[in-house]
Amino acid sequence: MARFFKKKDASIGSAPGSLIFIGTQKVDHSKIRVIDYDPNGLQELELENIRDGVPFKDTQTVTWINIDGVHDTELIKNIGDSFGLHPLVMEDIVNTGQRPKMEEYDDYLFFIIKMLRFDKEKQMIIGEQLSMVLGKTFLLTFQEQIGDVFEPVRDRIRKAKGRIRGTGIDYLAYALLDTIIDNYIHIIERMGEQIECIEDDILDNPTPELLQKINLYKREMNYIRKSIRPAREFIQRLANLDTDLIAETTTPFLKDLLDLSTQAVEVIDTYRDMLTDHLNIYHTGITNKLNEIMKVLTIFSAIFIPLTFIAGIYGTNFEYLPELHYRYSYFIFWGILLVVAVVMVNFFRRRNWL
Amino acid sequence: MARFFKKKDASIGSAPGSLIFIGTQKVDHSKIRVIDYDPNGLQELELENIRDGVPFKDTQTVTWINIDGVHDTELIKNIGDSFGLHPLVMEDIVNTGQRPKMEEYDDYLFFIIKMLRFDKEKQMIIGEQLSMVLGKTFLLTFQEQIGDVFEPVRDRIRKAKGRIRGTGIDYLAYALLDTIIDNYIHIIERMGEQIECIEDDILDNPTPELLQKINLYKREMNYIRKSIRPAREFIQRLANLDTDLIAETTTPFLKDLLDLSTQAVEVIDTYRDMLTDHLNIYHTGITNKLNEIMKVLTIFSAIFIPLTFIAGIYGTNFEYLPELHYRYSYFIFWGILLVVAVVMVNFFRRRNWL
Amino acid sequence: MARFFKKKDASIGSAPGSLIFIGTQKVDHSKIRVIDYDPNGLQELELENIRDGVPFKDTQTVTWINIDGVHDTELIKNIGDSFGLHPLVMEDIVNTGQRPKMEEYDDYLFFIIKMLRFDKEKQMIIGEQLSMVLGKTFLLTFQEQIGDVFEPVRDRIRKAKGRIRGTGIDYLAYALLDTIIDNYIHIIERMGEQIECIEDDILDNPTPELLQKINLYKREMNYIRKSIRPAREFIQRLANLDTDLIAETTTPFLKDLLDLSTQAVEVIDTYRDMLTDHLNIYHTGITNKLNEIMKVLTIFSAIFIPLTFIAGIYGTNFEYLPELHYRYSYFIFWGILLVVAVVMVNFFRRRNWL
Amino acid sequence: MARFFKKKDASIGSAPGSLIFIGTQKVDHSKIRVIDYDPNGLQELELENIRDGVPFKDTQTVTWINIDGVHDTELIKNIGDSFGLHPLVMEDIVNTGQRPKMEEYDDYLFFIIKMLRFDKEKQMIIGEQLSMVLGKTFLLTFQEQIGDVFEPVRDRIRKAKGRIRGTGIDYLAYALLDTIIDNYIHIIERMGEQIECIEDDILDNPTPELLQKINLYKREMNYIRKSIRPAREFIQRLANLDTDLIAETTTPFLKDLLDLSTQAVEVIDTYRDMLTDHLNIYHTGITNKLNEIMKVLTIFSAIFIPLTFIAGIYGTNFEYLPELHYRYSYFIFWGILLVVAVVMVNFFRRRNWL
Amino acid sequence: MARFFKKKDASIGSAPGSLIFIGTQKVDHSKIRVIDYDPNGLQELELENIRDGVPFKDTQTVTWINIDGVHDTELIKNIGDSFGLHPLVMEDIVNTGQRPKMEEYDDYLFFIIKMLRFDKEKQMIIGEQLSMVLGKTFLLTFQEQIGDVFEPVRDRIRKAKGRIRGTGIDYLAYALLDTIIDNYIHIIERMGEQIECIEDDILDNPTPELLQKINLYKREMNYIRKSIRPAREFIQRLANLDTDLIAETTTPFLKDLLDLSTQAVEVIDTYRDMLTDHLNIYHTGITNKLNEIMKVLTIFSAIFIPLTFIAGIYGTNFEYLPELHYRYSYFIFWGILLVVAVVMVNFFRRRNWL
Repeated sequence: MARFFKKKDASIGSAPGSLIFIGTQKVDHSKIRVIDYDPNGLQELELENIRDGVPFKDTQTVTWINIDGVHDTELIKNIGDSFGLHPLVMEDIVNTGQRPKMEEYDDYLFFIIKMLRFDKEKQMIIGEQLSMVLGKTFLLTFQEQIGDVFEPVRDRIRKAKGRIRGTGIDYLAYALLDTIIDNYIHIIERMGEQIECIEDDILDNPTPELLQKINLYKREMNYIRKSIRPAREFIQRLANLDTDLIAETTTPFLKDLLDLSTQAVEVIDTYRDMLTDHLNIYHTGITNKLNEIMKVLTIFSAIFIPLTFIAGIYGTNFEYLPELHYRYSYFIFWGILLVVAVVMVNFFRRRNWL
Repeated sequence: MARFFKKKDASIGSAPGSLIFIGTQKVDHSKIRVIDYDPNGLQELELENIRDGVPFKDTQTVTWINIDGVHDTELIKNIGDSFGLHPLVMEDIVNTGQRPKMEEYDDYLFFIIKMLRFDKEKQMIIGEQLSMVLGKTFLLTFQEQIGDVFEPVRDRIRKAKGRIRGTGIDYLAYALLDTIIDNYIHIIERMGEQIECIEDDILDNPTPELLQKINLYKREMNYIRKSIRPAREFIQRLANLDTDLIAETTTPFLKDLLDLSTQAVEVIDTYRDMLTDHLNIYHTGITNKLNEIMKVLTIFSAIFIPLTFIAGIYGTNFEYLPELHYRYSYFIFWGILLVVAVVMVNFFRRRNWL
Repeated sequence: MARFFKKKDASIGSAPGSLIFIGTQKVDHSKIRVIDYDPNGLQELELENIRDGVPFKDTQTVTWINIDGVHDTELIKNIGDSFGLHPLVMEDIVNTGQRPKMEEYDDYLFFIIKMLRFDKEKQMIIGEQLSMVLGKTFLLTFQEQIGDVFEPVRDRIRKAKGRIRGTGIDYLAYALLDTIIDNYIHIIERMGEQIECIEDDILDNPTPELLQKINLYKREMNYIRKSIRPAREFIQRLANLDTDLIAETTTPFLKDLLDLSTQAVEVIDTYRDMLTDHLNIYHTGITNKLNEIMKVLTIFSAIFIPLTFIAGIYGTNFEYLPELHYRYSYFIFWGILLVVAVVMVNFFRRRNWL
Repeated sequence: MARFFKKKDASIGSAPGSLIFIGTQKVDHSKIRVIDYDPNGLQELELENIRDGVPFKDTQTVTWINIDGVHDTELIKNIGDSFGLHPLVMEDIVNTGQRPKMEEYDDYLFFIIKMLRFDKEKQMIIGEQLSMVLGKTFLLTFQEQIGDVFEPVRDRIRKAKGRIRGTGIDYLAYALLDTIIDNYIHIIERMGEQIECIEDDILDNPTPELLQKINLYKREMNYIRKSIRPAREFIQRLANLDTDLIAETTTPFLKDLLDLSTQAVEVIDTYRDMLTDHLNIYHTGITNKLNEIMKVLTIFSAIFIPLTFIAGIYGTNFEYLPELHYRYSYFIFWGILLVVAVVMVNFFRRRNWL
Repeated sequence: MARFFKKKDASIGSAPGSLIFIGTQKVDHSKIRVIDYDPNGLQELELENIRDGVPFKDTQTVTWINIDGVHDTELIKNIGDSFGLHPLVMEDIVNTGQRPKMEEYDDYLFFIIKMLRFDKEKQMIIGEQLSMVLGKTFLLTFQEQIGDVFEPVRDRIRKAKGRIRGTGIDYLAYALLDTIIDNYIHIIERMGEQIECIEDDILDNPTPELLQKINLYKREMNYIRKSIRPAREFIQRLANLDTDLIAETTTPFLKDLLDLSTQAVEVIDTYRDMLTDHLNIYHTGITNKLNEIMKVLTIFSAIFIPLTFIAGIYGTNFEYLPELHYRYSYFIFWGILLVVAVVMVNFFRRRNWL
């Protein structure tokens, strides 16, 4: 289950802090992009070498360095050394099987969070690990592959839309987290619509495919929940953190984000409950359908059983069987059969069995 | 599921604090109503323009400004600027998919709560978001549409009934919250009566319609719970809040309100348990009914099976079958059939199977 | 469901603190009884008018004023004004749908607790609200109707039995609470005996009546639990309260009472678990019984099916059917039938199906 | 259910602290045994009168007074008065239906704990209440009957084995508690072995006796749990208690005891889970067994049904029924029957139904 | 269940702190190995006698003494006395049925943790108790048998790989704990793969062997959980411990370890949920399979029942049965049978029963 642990067997007992890439390499070459801005100006460039990015580090401008691809441990090591990161931080960045978390270091905050997208082909949600290092004047983000949900944020920076250009690095970090949580909600909604969609089918036409769908949705909802719950935890800690890395004016935004993630968790739980209900209704549906069949067939058989018995009586070969010799016996016999059948059908009707 | 999130796709990644109306527009034009009073006088008017309301803001009288309709982001922006509201507060007001909550700002408290009503046509509870801003001398309330549950409060203000005219703006806010919680309880009671109503039907006549009803009530109860539980949380915080926006004499009333909402949550949980019991009894009822049918039919068949066998014996064409030739064989044959049937019925009776 | 909320519709949105009697009037006229005592003397009288009771209020003797019937809001108002009670306290007294609770005021403590009794006719537990106001020198108790469980306490006061005459008003309040909790335990025990009683019937003879009984007991146990758990909570707070209304010597008694109520809650939970087990065993019993019937009948049918087939063979009218013409064919035929039947019965026996 | 409450009806509303024996008298006469020791000497005697025991109270030696039988309220009163016990302590000692607990008084600690033993005849665990009063120089233990699990401790005292003779009264109290918890574990293990024993039977041979056994074990495990959990709670409090009644050197032993009781609770929970699994497997076993029978029989019937139909065809009396007159018809008829039977059996085999 | 308690009956009531080996002896002779190193040098030797190890104790080098086999109480006593261990620590070391825990003593920390390995033969996870004593300059580890998961750590020490040679004794203890937790994760993953493996079989082919497998995995997962959860607890305490035995630079590594163990517990819970789902799907599979069989067979029977009845009609011996005498009656009769059969099959098809 690569979705849970990604610890390579080779790494068991290896020295902590040693940089071993754990995960699936998703890009050929790591790509380093820098966006550097302040209220007055904006610079956007792609670096060949991380050393070119270091000068941005200590300027008063907001510097966002984004790295796509974390398989290149050499590069990560260089970045880590240039920006003074703890060995464990570097290890966590290249190990893509981490649980979302926040860690405080003296000069920076370190977050891990999952970016999710629904892969239509595999019919499952794919998580990508995003590591963020929030320093005083720089923000490092590490993604597993190219392509993310941050384009609207980049647009807002480029167009100086909203407050983003006028605020510090902490607001940028918030804006990225906000976008990720927004995206969670988008995915939850899409899944939610499908979950509600199947509701009507369940009672009427409970097929095994439906059961598999329900179980699939349940697993995916659990997966999202596992991503969002620890994220929510660290956003809560972040909103109450006593640090000069987060400006006081950013705190209300973080609290707002906390509300949003709390709501997301609640909605997930609502859908999980709904899926549990779906499962129960599914089983009720299955049972009802079978019961209906069995009931009708059993009643059907029950009606013919006495009729067959009566026919059996007059199939006997007794020498002295008076009824056999009357002229209208056969027609009376039919009459009796009909009466018995009608009486029985009525009986079942009156008892509400039909 | 518009009842959970109302985040528009367009708003994903948009700048926080940007005013985008999220929800369904329920009125054509927003309506601004002002009630301004003190123990000595009362003024009630409808404004064309929010600017006419600003003068009331800083007087010593109690000023309640109610806005019906929050789709007009321009208006909300004007109000927010006039009364010094934080951009996130304005965003929350126009986003009608918020979770109930309270936020403290320097000069005012901000609440979001849901007003509920049961829509008979759609057979579901409709929630309307009410946002309240409680300042030192003014109370702003924002509703999604015209028509609310506050008429009794307005009456008490007009008729100077009870303590409302002699107390401050905090008591007014309490009175509105109290009316909303009272209304929750009214709805819970109405649903509760229906839940109890179906109880007798469940065991006797478990139809699929009943199952749908039970599931409907369960969902609605969950929905109310989701509205009232966070409300209860912030009322608790409010009752213990160290702020000069709430007078000390109002605190006992808030504690009373807390008791009421605690009780409401407990009653909801009681009804939820009752619905779970209903579901179980429903399944027991279904099973019992089918079992009864199957049992009777199986016994019925079992009685005829040996009779048919005996008839089969005498339907054989053996040349030397002595019984066939006796004069009274046929009547003895009938006698044997009767005896076998009676013995079997008795056997089933004695075993309590019939 | 009058047992949960008793809020009248008329009272929705009414001014808090307004005295509206909510409940069922159970006595024609409220009755005021005073017991006033100290170690040396005892006075017991019935008042026409509450004003006659006020002089007792400030004496050094222990004064217990008991009011039966709370529908007379005028009277409650008078009492409240005479003894300086908060309007919300008065409102709670006349609203008989309150949750058990304790509230601290400057000069007195206010409790609400439920007195329970099992109504044999309605087959349900009836709760009566008891409100207590514990001042420095007086104790007010408000009951919904005449008749309570306090006679043993009154006897102990009259006969100066135990420590009650030599201690203060707080010990009297404790004694009353103790009697109520004792009474809960008495009711739990009576129900418990009945719950254990039905245990043997469940597996052997699972009738629908039994199911209804189990559900009834479950509901009643839940009802008692809802009364006792908040009572336990406030007794805990009371035992740790830092107030001069409770003497230090009374605290060990309150802790003892806390133990008792903790134990009561645990025993209730034990019985609830037992009822859940009963329900499961009931369903097992139902299923086993039906399974047994179906199994026996199916085996019974299975034995006759091949016999009937063999008879069918020799019922065919083939012209050249050699067996029909042998002299002993018919008897050999019977022999075959018997052998087949015996073989099948043995087969089922060996497989442990019979 | 004498195992839960033992409150006599007569005692409802009785004065707290009044000595009414509640329980079953298990010895004719109470027996008082004294063991008095210090590192240098040991004295063991049986007293006729508690007054003879008082002199031991204040000596520097460790004095353990054990009373077997608590029905003699006069004796308990004497002991209580001699050793300065609170009336509520005395009441708890004679009321054998108490929940395990610890109470701190100024000069002594008071514990109640249950000693358990498995009564083979009644097939249930019998609990006996042990009350302990731990003073500075004396330890009082009150048992319901003669015979306990303390013999190994007495032996260690007599033989000066281990540290017991060299330590104080607190270590003796610890040693007794340790022996009781050890005994719990012994009982849990014995039950556990039986629980594991029945595991194999459940799936293969799910008899109703097995179901009763499972329910019995479940109830007994719950009973042990109810005894050990509050004991664990007070041992935890004891290990962290700030009192000079417990020497600092004894604390590590109490923490060890806490570990042991935590582990005991966990093992109980493991066995409870195992029993729940057993129950589920039992039901699976029952269902599987019945399903197997029904399936085999239904298939058996299904094979004969078309055969009987074919025989029925040639049992008809049509005048012009050509097949009847061919010479080998009867043998062809048998051939067809065989072919049909073989085809059907193969069909069921291929579908994995047999 | 030797996996839970390993308390010998003989030890009930024995003096606490007495050294009685409890467990299964797994080695003939205990083996003592010492690794002593500092950044500059490394010494590795095997001791005959523990006294030879004492000199290493107080040097400034890092001294790791590993003992394989704890049955030799004499040896443990010697070690305990040489290194100043508390008698309870020694008792815990030789009692191999301990719950994972940490205890703080003045000069050292004492941990108990379980090393797990999957025994393929017994098809169950075998736990081995590892006791660790972390002093200022020495680390004692006690294992039940020879062979452990620490080889990679020893390699890192020998090759001076990573930071291990440059750091203190606390880092070594962390490295060992890290290796154990890594190993847990390895085992969880291996089990997890098998759990996912059986997923597809469950719905298609629910055999009883599969049920046993599911129950086996469930039990093993519970067993791992019982080992890892208390370990996680004490790692948490360890990471926040205020002691000079743990250097500040080691704390981030411990926090990292805490994250890892938290994640491990979460993954276990995920697999447990998955197994519960598996169980439910298994039951659904069983039921579906049986239902399918019963449905097909019942429909099969239902089709033949009216056909047999019709054949029965014309098997009667009525003298005047006109149909029997027409020339084509027999063929019309066959036609009617066919029509009835086709109509019924169509009916079942249209109702989606086939």
